[in-house]
Amino acid sequence: MQTKNIAIVGSGLVGSLLALYLRKRNYNVTVFDRRPDIRTIKFSGRSINLAMSVRGWKTLDKIGIGDEVRKLAIPMYKRTMHVQGEPIYHQYYGKEGEAISSIPRGILNKEMITLAENAGAVFRFNEKVWDVNLPEAKIYTGETEKSEWKEYQYDMIFGCDGAFSRVRHKMQRRSRFNYSQKFLDTGYKELGIPANPDGSHKLDKNSLHIWPRGKFMLIALPNLDGTFTCTLFMPHEGENSFEKLTNDDEVMSFWEQYFPDTIKIMPTLLSDFKNNPTSALVTMKCYPWTYWDKVALVGDSAHAIVPFYGQGMNAGFEDISILDEIIDELGRDNWQDIFETYQKSRKPNADAIAELSYRNFIEMSSKTADPDFLLRKKIEKHFSEKHPDKWLPLYSRVTFSHRPYAEALKTGDQQASIMDRVMEMENIENIWETDEVEQYILELLAEKTYKLQN
Amino acid sequence: MQTKNIAIVGSGLVGSLLALYLRKRNYNVTVFDRRPDIRTIKFSGRSINLAMSVRGWKTLDKIGIGDEVRKLAIPMYKRTMHVQGEPIYHQYYGKEGEAISSIPRGILNKEMITLAENAGAVFRFNEKVWDVNLPEAKIYTGETEKSEWKEYQYDMIFGCDGAFSRVRHKMQRRSRFNYSQKFLDTGYKELGIPANPDGSHKLDKNSLHIWPRGKFMLIALPNLDGTFTCTLFMPHEGENSFEKLTNDDEVMSFWEQYFPDTIKIMPTLLSDFKNNPTSALVTMKCYPWTYWDKVALVGDSAHAIVPFYGQGMNAGFEDISILDEIIDELGRDNWQDIFETYQKSRKPNADAIAELSYRNFIEMSSKTADPDFLLRKKIEKHFSEKHPDKWLPLYSRVTFSHRPYAEALKTGDQQASIMDRVMEMENIENIWETDEVEQYILELLAEKTYKLQN
Repeated sequence: MQTKNIAIVGSGLVGSLLALYLRKRNYNVTVFDRRPDIRTIKFSGRSINLAMSVRGWKTLDKIGIGDEVRKLAIPMYKRTMHVQGEPIYHQYYGKEGEAISSIPRGILNKEMITLAENAGAVFRFNEKVWDVNLPEAKIYTGETEKSEWKEYQYDMIFGCDGAFSRVRHKMQRRSRFNYSQKFLDTGYKELGIPANPDGSHKLDKNSLHIWPRGKFMLIALPNLDGTFTCTLFMPHEGENSFEKLTNDDEVMSFWEQYFPDTIKIMPTLLSDFKNNPTSALVTMKCYPWTYWDKVALVGDSAHAIVPFYGQGMNAGFEDISILDEIIDELGRDNWQDIFETYQKSRKPNADAIAELSYRNFIEMSSKTADPDFLLRKKIEKHFSEKHPDKWLPLYSRVTFSHRPYAEALKTGDQQASIMDRVMEMENIENIWETDEVEQYILELLAEKTYKLQN
Repeated sequence: MQTKNIAIVGSGLVGSLLALYLRKRNYNVTVFDRRPDIRTIKFSGRSINLAMSVRGWKTLDKIGIGDEVRKLAIPMYKRTMHVQGEPIYHQYYGKEGEAISSIPRGILNKEMITLAENAGAVFRFNEKVWDVNLPEAKIYTGETEKSEWKEYQYDMIFGCDGAFSRVRHKMQRRSRFNYSQKFLDTGYKELGIPANPDGSHKLDKNSLHIWPRGKFMLIALPNLDGTFTCTLFMPHEGENSFEKLTNDDEVMSFWEQYFPDTIKIMPTLLSDFKNNPTSALVTMKCYPWTYWDKVALVGDSAHAIVPFYGQGMNAGFEDISILDEIIDELGRDNWQDIFETYQKSRKPNADAIAELSYRNFIEMSSKTADPDFLLRKKIEKHFSEKHPDKWLPLYSRVTFSHRPYAEALKTGDQQASIMDRVMEMENIENIWETDEVEQYILELLAEKTYKLQN
């Protein structure tokens, strides 16, 4: 059988990692991107640092580049909370040693492209894909939508071209294609904290820093060079909103009111605020993800989510490792079945992580400063440490396990309903470490299990 | 002030009626349609007959063409149910004299275009709109998407170009545009029942006929010429599905099994089945509906719904009468405010009728044959007749009132929760006409009202 020619649209993280995977199976791989090679340009200031967790690492390790990428990452073991009027405190993400890893998107993407290129993938930068012929796996590129187009013929096409995918755009015009895009009223803007003159970090470098302020929040993720990449999440319109901060004075007086402790470590605040764009946050769902044995969507083009669980890239990478497992299972040229199995298995999990990410926005911006919420977390953690076989907290299930996202969502809802009842116990704030609470949780768990089995 | 030049994209029911309304306010109106003038061609067999109810009539009467259109309509006072193995029975839609009106879409559309044309609207048929410049209200038309385009400049553009609107397509590409399209697994196909040789109807002509069969159903709506327009609603795939009926034998044996009583009155069944397309059913939601004071979506382009409540056209027409009221209120050239008020007031109602229409699919195809459901309806009707001020059934609230759809949905849900409790009364099938039941409903209503007010 002749080696298949495969086109990948999009040279982002998912596109370049998929290229590497397909090259390892010896397919001929060409990657198209409408943008220039990011290795040759300054990366734009509109990125939230990545938080790689086990799903992402698994996919990198499987293809043998995990250690290479680890060199670019800083482990974050905890949230460091900067609540107004309170001392700084920490919330550990998992068990001792468990961490998520901060990596700047641009640096990782450059590395991935080089790795894929070295493995034999051909990259066609600055080539804009305008149309796709789905049943014939043809790609049309050109200067503009109306200019002369060049036609390319492939055996298969992978759309890895992100939330506003052009490949999906074509699938979208077919009948019976389900699609939704929903924007948050909250947007975001990238800001920066420079390194100290000696190259060290101005804040604890092994933390994800959060300044929760109810409807808005600031976060900061560390970089290897001593800097932090910060993101301000805030409503587009309303009382405290991007719309209201239109000049230096307004930004400064807002900052002095809500983030006074950061002013001295953010010397470029005003220029960052002015120069970096305000971006929108979208949840995009669609189905189907594939067309015959010809076209498949992978990553954000199939399921774009809001960034509040740090799972966007992890979910996209997991698409690739799951797809790879399915190829192993069904045989490498049985693409119709491979695609069908892939979309059926991934869709419920993509929907689940979309829901979880949306909910985590509420948690991060308001609940992390709420004493009741903190008590809940403490009780959960205490119980989980005593009964690790019976209770894996939702965050750990999403971030530190490979169990399906859909299962995490379901189990998380069950745990939440148990914790609702625990929090109703009289005097819970004083008795939370007692046997009584532990026994009650065990009872409630047994009840749930009984119900599930009967 | 100079008279505004307005473009309407789409010459369907909503586009042509809006043209008439805008002409009455003396705007210059041009209507674009990519299709030929339907007055010059045979109308395609992919339409479900319209069921005009009071919201539609109000909009027609307000502009003085209600009586003209009434001549094309047949009133349907009831559902006539053809349940397998049971005698035919009726469900009246409302109070005595209340009816929905059956009108073939093509006939109505032709009439509306002529009325708008006579009022001075200019129609440009066979002219395909490919792009819109939203902030400048420019329209681009041409033979194909890639051919030379012609540019038109207007003061305002109305997108009345249906569920797959090209105008909305352009709005969709902007950031923060919320959008969803969701297809039912059920599709539909138009079929026909001819008139008797003497021009009379082969079935009761003042009924909407339903053959409910669980996951699929056949319906028939009367036409003035003695014919019926039938629609088969059925899953695309699965046990009983369009996918399974691929030749004459399969269609006939399916028909003999499920609709044997219709075979002799449907002599063209096999050719209809073969020649008419199988169409898909979509619910489309989006927001915003307008762009500055330049562009607005009206009708299906803003809110396409499934046809099971017979409210698609009625909702589109109601958009127009509400818009007209808002113009009266805010002054005829205050378009930014007019559009903002229009979209804010209509969006919750469009969402509500989308939900109600989806639910009615379940009701029509399965519940209408369920004895419990019929008893519920009987109890509701009985109570409503005794206490018309306290209980207007949901169907009547949607179909025979001008109250907002969102209110109908909310009140309907409250009534449903009351009826759930009534149906739990012991021996309800024998005591449903007693004072006990009446008193219980009154109590439950008082409880709800109390809760709402406190």
